Amino acid sequence: MKLSEISEKLSGKIIGNGSIEITNVGKIESAKKDEITFIANPLYEKYFDLTKAGAIIVSEQFFNSINNTNKNLIVLNDPYSGFLKVLDMFSIHAKSQVKGIHSSAIISDLAVISDDNVSIGANCFIGDNCKIGNNTTILPNCVIMNEAEIGENVFIYPNVSIYNNCKIGNNVTIHSGVVIGSDGFGFAKNSDGSYQKIPQTGNVVIDDYVEIGSNTTIDRATIGSTLICKGVKIDNQVQIAHNVVIGENTVIAAQVGIAGSAKIGKNCMIAGQAGIVGHIEICDNTIITASVGVSKSITKPGIYSGYRAQPMKKELKLQAILRRLEDIMNELKSNKIK
Amino acid sequence: MKLSEISEKLSGKIIGNGSIEITNVGKIESAKKDEITFIANPLYEKYFDLTKAGAIIVSEQFFNSINNTNKNLIVLNDPYSGFLKVLDMFSIHAKSQVKGIHSSAIISDLAVISDDNVSIGANCFIGDNCKIGNNTTILPNCVIMNEAEIGENVFIYPNVSIYNNCKIGNNVTIHSGVVIGSDGFGFAKNSDGSYQKIPQTGNVVIDDYVEIGSNTTIDRATIGSTLICKGVKIDNQVQIAHNVVIGENTVIAAQVGIAGSAKIGKNCMIAGQAGIVGHIEICDNTIITASVGVSKSITKPGIYSGYRAQPMKKELKLQAILRRLEDIMNELKSNKIK
Amino acid sequence: MKLSEISEKLSGKIIGNGSIEITNVGKIESAKKDEITFIANPLYEKYFDLTKAGAIIVSEQFFNSINNTNKNLIVLNDPYSGFLKVLDMFSIHAKSQVKGIHSSAIISDLAVISDDNVSIGANCFIGDNCKIGNNTTILPNCVIMNEAEIGENVFIYPNVSIYNNCKIGNNVTIHSGVVIGSDGFGFAKNSDGSYQKIPQTGNVVIDDYVEIGSNTTIDRATIGSTLICKGVKIDNQVQIAHNVVIGENTVIAAQVGIAGSAKIGKNCMIAGQAGIVGHIEICDNTIITASVGVSKSITKPGIYSGYRAQPMKKELKLQAILRRLEDIMNELKSNKIK
Repeated sequence: MKLSEISEKLSGKIIGNGSIEITNVGKIESAKKDEITFIANPLYEKYFDLTKAGAIIVSEQFFNSINNTNKNLIVLNDPYSGFLKVLDMFSIHAKSQVKGIHSSAIISDLAVISDDNVSIGANCFIGDNCKIGNNTTILPNCVIMNEAEIGENVFIYPNVSIYNNCKIGNNVTIHSGVVIGSDGFGFAKNSDGSYQKIPQTGNVVIDDYVEIGSNTTIDRATIGSTLICKGVKIDNQVQIAHNVVIGENTVIAAQVGIAGSAKIGKNCMIAGQAGIVGHIEICDNTIITASVGVSKSITKPGIYSGYRAQPMKKELKLQAILRRLEDIMNELKSNKIK
Repeated sequence: MKLSEISEKLSGKIIGNGSIEITNVGKIESAKKDEITFIANPLYEKYFDLTKAGAIIVSEQFFNSINNTNKNLIVLNDPYSGFLKVLDMFSIHAKSQVKGIHSSAIISDLAVISDDNVSIGANCFIGDNCKIGNNTTILPNCVIMNEAEIGENVFIYPNVSIYNNCKIGNNVTIHSGVVIGSDGFGFAKNSDGSYQKIPQTGNVVIDDYVEIGSNTTIDRATIGSTLICKGVKIDNQVQIAHNVVIGENTVIAAQVGIAGSAKIGKNCMIAGQAGIVGHIEICDNTIITASVGVSKSITKPGIYSGYRAQPMKKELKLQAILRRLEDIMNELKSNKIK
Repeated sequence: MKLSEISEKLSGKIIGNGSIEITNVGKIESAKKDEITFIANPLYEKYFDLTKAGAIIVSEQFFNSINNTNKNLIVLNDPYSGFLKVLDMFSIHAKSQVKGIHSSAIISDLAVISDDNVSIGANCFIGDNCKIGNNTTILPNCVIMNEAEIGENVFIYPNVSIYNNCKIGNNVTIHSGVVIGSDGFGFAKNSDGSYQKIPQTGNVVIDDYVEIGSNTTIDRATIGSTLICKGVKIDNQVQIAHNVVIGENTVIAAQVGIAGSAKIGKNCMIAGQAGIVGHIEICDNTIITASVGVSKSITKPGIYSGYRAQPMKKELKLQAILRRLEDIMNELKSNKIK
C-alpha cells in the first residue's frame, strides 16, 4: 500500500515521500524500510533518528519539536489509535480463510442459517434448530450442538465446542479449543460416599462484543444462565463455573478461575492466575492483581493483591515486612536479651 | 408435563391444581408461572409467599407449618432429592443429539463396536482394534486412537481426544476438549543441556462412574497406568500427570494440577487451583482448600490450607497474625523504646 | 522379542537365557516373567532378589557385586540409558496410527505437501499455501490454517489448531488440543469504558526439537513473533502470551502462565503453576519452583521460590519463621510483660 493511501485513510498530514510502498508494520527498533511504525510514548522518541522504518506515525506535538528531517512521516493528533488502524490494514484476516459453506460441513436440516454471508468451514457440525446470523464465520472442525443460537458478525476459530441451548450475541470472537456450555460441577453426596450428579439444565448466554481466548471453558448454569455481559474480554485458559455473572467491559487475563455463582461487576480487571471462590460478589471497578486468591466479597472499588486478597497498599506493606522478617526477629530478640 | 404427572413420578402428595402444565424448573426468586421450584433450606422459606412459580416442592414439615395456601404444592419427605429428579425430567438431554452411527464417521474395520445402541457422531475417528460398549454415545469430532477401549453407557462430548491403548470403564462422562493419554512429561538431560524424551509406554485407566470436565488433561504412565478410580469427579482444566493414582469418590475442582506419581486417597476433596507436587501421597478423607500448594505427603485426614499446605486451623491463625503484622511490629518496637 | 535381540541392540553382555521371549517393560516391583526391568539407582537393588521380571538390565558394577544368580541379565555400562532404549522398542508408536493422506482430509490445492512420507489423518483441514515437510504426521481432526508452515519429522496429535502464518520447525511434537497462534490479549480502552481490539498481526515461530503438551496455548505476537527456541519442552495446559521468547532447552511444567513480552533465558526450569508477569526477563539457568509468582526480572541464575519469588534459601527461612510465628509472637509478648 502506498504511504499516501495510508495517510488518507487516517486523515493525516504527510511529510516526505508519499509514494513509497509500505508492506507491513514494525516495531520502531527493528522496522525495515518497507514497514511503517509509530511514536506515541515519549520513551520511544530516542529511536526516531535510529529507526530504519520507511515511515513513522507521530503526533503533531512531536513533529513541532523536531527540526528538518528526511524521514517520511504521517502526522496525527493521536498516533497510537492511528497505528491501531494501520495494524488492522495489514492484518492477514483470518476471515478470509473460509468463504461459504463447505461441502463437508454437516448441517442439520432443522438448523436456521442466515443466507446473508455466512461461512461454515470443513468438518463442522451444526445441530438441530441452531440459528446462525448474518456475516458469521465458523472455521473448520467446530461443533455447535442442538438449539444453540449464534448472532451476527460472530467469528469462531477451529475446534470450538458449543453445547446445546447456549446463546452467543453479535460481534463475538471465540478462539480455538473454547468450550461453552459444559456441565457445571455439581454433585450431591450419597450416604455411601459416592456422588449423584445434579443435572445442569441451564445454559450460557454471551452478550455482544465479547472475545474469548483459546481453551477457555464456560460452564452452563444449573438453573438459569451463566452470563457474560457486553464487551467482556476473556484471555486463554480461563475457567468460568456455573451461574457466574461477569459484568460489562470486565477484562479477565489468562488462567483465572471463577467458581460457581460468583458475580463480578462491570469494568473490573482480573490479572492472570487469580482465583475467585464461589458465591461472592466483586463490585464494579475492582482490580485484582496476578495470582490473587479472593475468598470474600469485595464491596469497595480499588486494587487488591496477595495470596489472600487485601487492598494493595496493605499487601505491599506486608510483603515489605515479610522480606525483612528474619532481621526484625533477630533485632527484637537481641534487644530483649540486653 | 402436567403437575400431577411430576408428582406421580416423585410419589408425592399434590396440593392444589394438578392439571396445570409445567414446562421448566426455576429458582424460587425468579420462577415463572409455568415453572416448578422447591424449598429445602429454611433460608428460602421467606420466598414462599412471594414466588410466582406455578408449583413448589416442599417438605412435609414445612407444609404442616403453613396455613391455608392457594399455591400448588408437591409435598415430599425429601424435597431436595425430589427436585434433583425434576431437574433431570426437564434436562434437554444431550443424549438425544446423536442417534446411530453417522455416515461421516471414520471407523476402522478392525474396531469392535457393540451393535446395541451405540451412537457415533459426525466426523469422529475410531482407530484399529478399539472397543466400544453398549449404549455408549460419542458426539461429533472426537478422535479415539488405536486399541483404546470404551465401556458401556459412556457419554463423550465433542472434540475429545483419547490416545491409543487407554481404557475407559462404564458409565463415564467426558466433556469437550478433554485429552486422555497424552505423553507424560519425562525427559532425561543430555550432557550438552538438551533433553532426550523418555518414552511413555503406559496408558490411562479410567474406572466406572467417573466424570471429567472440559479441557482436562490426563497423561499416560511412563510404565503401567495412570489410574482414576471409581466414582471420581473431575472439573474443568484439571491437569493429571503420568502415573498419578486418584482414589475412589475423590472430587477435584477446576484448574487443579497433580504432578507425576502423586497418589491421592479415597473420598478426598481438592478445591480449585490447588497444586500437588509429584511422588507424594495424600491419605483418604483429606480436604485441600483452594489455591493450596501441597509439597509433602499428608498422612492425617483433615482440612489443609495455605500457600504451603498446613492444617487449616494453623493457617487461619497465621493469616490472622499476618493481617495484624504491621501493628504488632509497631507495638513491639514502641514498647521496646519505652 | 527375544532377550538376545534386545541385548544385541544395546550392545550388552547377556547372563542367563537369551532365548526367552520378552513382551513388555515393567517396574522392578511389579514386572511379570515376560517383562524386562532395570536397576540403575542403588535404592532399587533391594528388589533384585524379589523381582519376578524375566530379565533385568544392570550395571557392570552391580553385576560384579553379586554372587551367582539364576536371573537373566543384560549387563551394561549405563543401565538407565539402555532402559530408555528398551522403552522405545516396546512403545506402541502412535506414528503407526496413520499412513498416507486420508481421503476425508480437506487439503487446499494451494498447499504444498512434501511427497516424501507425509501422513494426514481423517477430517484434517489444511489451508491455502500451507507447507508440510518430509516424514511429518498429522493425526485426525487437526486444523492448519492458511500460510502455516510445518517442517520435517513433525508429529501432531488429534484436534490441534494451528493458526495462519505460524511456523513450526523440524522434529517437533505437538499434543492434542494445543492451540498455536491465537490472538494475543491486547485491547485499548475507549473513553466509554469499552475496549477496542489491538490487531495481532504477528505469528508464532517454533524451532526444532520442541515438544508441546496437551491443551497448551501459545499466542501470536502483536508485531513480530512469539518465539519458542530449539529444544524447549512444554508440558500440558501452559499459557504463553504474545511476544514471549523462551530460550533454548528451557523446560516448562504444567499450568505455567507466562505473560506478554516476557523473555525467558536458556536452560531454565519452570515448575508447575508458576506465573511470570509480562515485560520482564529471566536469565539463563534459572530454576523457578512450583506455584511461584515472578513479578520482577531475575538477573542472577539460581533457584527461586515463594508467593513472590525470592532466592530459595531466603524463602525457606521465611517459611520456617512463618510456621513458628504464633509461638514467636507469644514469646515476645510474654517477655515484654515480665
